[in-house]
Amino acid sequence: MDGQTGAFPHLDGAGRALMVDVSAKEVTTRTATAAGTVLLSAECVTALRDDTVPKGDALAVARIAGIQGAKKTPDLVPLCHPLPLSGVTVDLDVVDSGVEIVATVRTTGRTGVEMEALTAVSVAALALVDMIKAVDREARITDVRVLAKAGGRSGSWTRDGS
Amino acid sequence: MDGQTGAFPHLDGAGRALMVDVSAKEVTTRTATAAGTVLLSAECVTALRDDTVPKGDALAVARIAGIQGAKKTPDLVPLCHPLPLSGVTVDLDVVDSGVEIVATVRTTGRTGVEMEALTAVSVAALALVDMIKAVDREARITDVRVLAKAGGRSGSWTRDGS
Amino acid sequence: MDGQTGAFPHLDGAGRALMVDVSAKEVTTRTATAAGTVLLSAECVTALRDDTVPKGDALAVARIAGIQGAKKTPDLVPLCHPLPLSGVTVDLDVVDSGVEIVATVRTTGRTGVEMEALTAVSVAALALVDMIKAVDREARITDVRVLAKAGGRSGSWTRDGS
Amino acid sequence: MDGQTGAFPHLDGAGRALMVDVSAKEVTTRTATAAGTVLLSAECVTALRDDTVPKGDALAVARIAGIQGAKKTPDLVPLCHPLPLSGVTVDLDVVDSGVEIVATVRTTGRTGVEMEALTAVSVAALALVDMIKAVDREARITDVRVLAKAGGRSGSWTRDGS
Amino acid sequence: MDGQTGAFPHLDGAGRALMVDVSAKEVTTRTATAAGTVLLSAECVTALRDDTVPKGDALAVARIAGIQGAKKTPDLVPLCHPLPLSGVTVDLDVVDSGVEIVATVRTTGRTGVEMEALTAVSVAALALVDMIKAVDREARITDVRVLAKAGGRSGSWTRDGS
Amino acid sequence: MDGQTGAFPHLDGAGRALMVDVSAKEVTTRTATAAGTVLLSAECVTALRDDTVPKGDALAVARIAGIQGAKKTPDLVPLCHPLPLSGVTVDLDVVDSGVEIVATVRTTGRTGVEMEALTAVSVAALALVDMIKAVDREARITDVRVLAKAGGRSGSWTRDGS
Repeated sequence: MDGQTGAFPHLDGAGRALMVDVSAKEVTTRTATAAGTVLLSAECVTALRDDTVPKGDALAVARIAGIQGAKKTPDLVPLCHPLPLSGVTVDLDVVDSGVEIVATVRTTGRTGVEMEALTAVSVAALALVDMIKAVDREARITDVRVLAKAGGRSGSWTRDGS
Repeated sequence: MDGQTGAFPHLDGAGRALMVDVSAKEVTTRTATAAGTVLLSAECVTALRDDTVPKGDALAVARIAGIQGAKKTPDLVPLCHPLPLSGVTVDLDVVDSGVEIVATVRTTGRTGVEMEALTAVSVAALALVDMIKAVDREARITDVRVLAKAGGRSGSWTRDGS
Repeated sequence: MDGQTGAFPHLDGAGRALMVDVSAKEVTTRTATAAGTVLLSAECVTALRDDTVPKGDALAVARIAGIQGAKKTPDLVPLCHPLPLSGVTVDLDVVDSGVEIVATVRTTGRTGVEMEALTAVSVAALALVDMIKAVDREARITDVRVLAKAGGRSGSWTRDGS
Repeated sequence: MDGQTGAFPHLDGAGRALMVDVSAKEVTTRTATAAGTVLLSAECVTALRDDTVPKGDALAVARIAGIQGAKKTPDLVPLCHPLPLSGVTVDLDVVDSGVEIVATVRTTGRTGVEMEALTAVSVAALALVDMIKAVDREARITDVRVLAKAGGRSGSWTRDGS
Repeated sequence: MDGQTGAFPHLDGAGRALMVDVSAKEVTTRTATAAGTVLLSAECVTALRDDTVPKGDALAVARIAGIQGAKKTPDLVPLCHPLPLSGVTVDLDVVDSGVEIVATVRTTGRTGVEMEALTAVSVAALALVDMIKAVDREARITDVRVLAKAGGRSGSWTRDGS
Repeated sequence: MDGQTGAFPHLDGAGRALMVDVSAKEVTTRTATAAGTVLLSAECVTALRDDTVPKGDALAVARIAGIQGAKKTPDLVPLCHPLPLSGVTVDLDVVDSGVEIVATVRTTGRTGVEMEALTAVSVAALALVDMIKAVDREARITDVRVLAKAGGRSGSWTRDGS
């Protein structure tokens, strides 16, 4: 595991991808929150609100898919470390323009869980699109980003204006 | 599998989720194309262009993750049917505002592959964010949507203005 | 693939496990239905009925887990063939003694889907137990069995008294 | 992760499923034992005993499937935490009425392993049914329950009459 | 899916990896056989032969792992197509120098199963090494190669001197 | 978990496979390095060197597959413990006879990572064979073995002549 020095620890000396060695990092409680939005037609939002699209289930399926998605992060993102997640929440709110998704992931480990939070949001969004795609084939997943993180050497961080 | 009639075939009579029966649908060649963008800082785009972030590898990791993501769709999206994918492409282009991702998925099966194309784009985007997050922690995945589909009973469809 | 003859096609000549060759079997539509029961305390059933245990969600989580479980059958059962499932339903009904689960799985393939139906029931039951185990740690999964199957060379079969 | 208070920690304030935050729980050695029975025809039991159904292999396949099943628990049960399992045993005994299965799982972690033990038993039972289903299509998985657990805040517990 | 022409169909026009489109290829029955050897110490071979290393189980574990490995090929090999495998055999024979492994995989599909056969051999070999590594930490997996394939446009092929 | 005593801890008293209990072992930093070679035709090596086989990508695909393969070890090798890997490197070098692969895996856990290192090498080799099999169908994976390990009760070990 030589050559991991310098500015880009994801690469070894010859520019090749690797899973960065984190064994010297401290085991601490770490959290990350990510968010995103699924933009939907007015008809689809009305259907969600009138419960003529099975609102409960579409949101329930998306929420469960998001929680399971967080656990699959190291399988989906090639250089992510497997981590023992200690908590995951995924919340979905129907708004005029679609559905807003917020996920928070917590671990006690050697590296952060931003990717797990982003994956939870993305997979919840994909599952939601699948549930409503017969009603709105123009759905759009947008603005998936990290809102905040805490724990670890670099301390807490919150996105400006989030 | 009674009660699958009507406007919302993802639900049976009592509003409960199910994997819709597609056994009466025709086996045809079906394709779908989806796209999305990862918005990055000017500094990160410059790094990708100057190859001081290992551009090749970041894009290669994302592309491979996207192809593998397409294959994992039925595992990620609870009500998706498992399908024998016959082809997957994932293309990433560096532009001034970040990286544009386009994925095309093809099958010969009984249902379409829009979800597989969207999943390929989303997973490629997540892998890209993981590769550059030490350079740009404000990366944002946006505008993930289906561009076009072909094959199956409902024929071809192209998003307006795509 | 010699030695697959005789009464026990799961074994080759020397008594060793194999995934039986089904390539000579006909591609037909095949269905299987399985059922099982999770026995619960009267207190837990009351909680499910009074909605003081979040009945909707516990049942929704179990139903989705069961559908996903059907898709994971070839990963769980070593000698099962991977099959392109064309439909899965999982129904849960709260009764006085607990929750009854029925799953129906459909494919168009070369072998039956009894194991997929049994797996859907078992995984739904496990997920249900997980949801209520803080309320009733003595839950018991019982009577998981195939009720009926149809399609394929051996034709339809229904369990006596099912 | 607000709103996790009260009697049902699997739900947040609005009755929605989440993976409970266990990061404040203590890391201790925890074990759980579960059991279940596969009821078989007299003919099938005789075949297992006379070794005319490849007893060794059917039981070996089931045992290995059960051990692997324990590791897949967080993938099967949506709200289960991923845990670093430190030991798994799965024992199968042929009795007059079928096969009795007992599984013990051990971890050093922040939450218990009852679900892992139940999953090991269920998956072993499913694999056994698959092995003998050509001999006995009326096999029945029954009485899958936790026998005992130890470790963690709530201490040891043994099922009455187990 | 433009640019797939020419000598290297795994790459599109700009040298980028893709999952080749096989939808125009014929659905036929295809088989492939691969083999490999695990070289072991004389002490370890003696233990396998004298049954003082639990020969039956070590070989049974490896055989089952190999069958399951064949099913995991599209998950392990990034550009492999998912295929509905119709049969898998894995045979292990103890010889003076170690254990010889031969795997045959069969499908009815649009592309060959050489990778599935090679993966079955490799995973069986890894599982065998795991079983005996306390007895022989110098085990060596060697000579993993395709022996023969049949079916598909290119017809049958057998390795010289295999 | 009785009966785990004696020379073969992978077996309980009756010769049956189990996942050995490691909960009494110490948590330490452990590393393992494994290597292997893919033997290729002179034509294929020339193509890799002349970049007429997309060398970069073939090696990149193999490297990423190897890293992901390390994470899948407990899923592939039935009795392996799931471990929180803290670092993985996979290096591939083109030599006259083919491609040499070396993988190093690191964990902080209760058991070693030899199997993870061997799995990383094997899966990288399989992915490489898949990338070049249109150019050289006689590729051969050979000499996959552990080179060195460190950490844990048994201390460091290096293969003679490695």
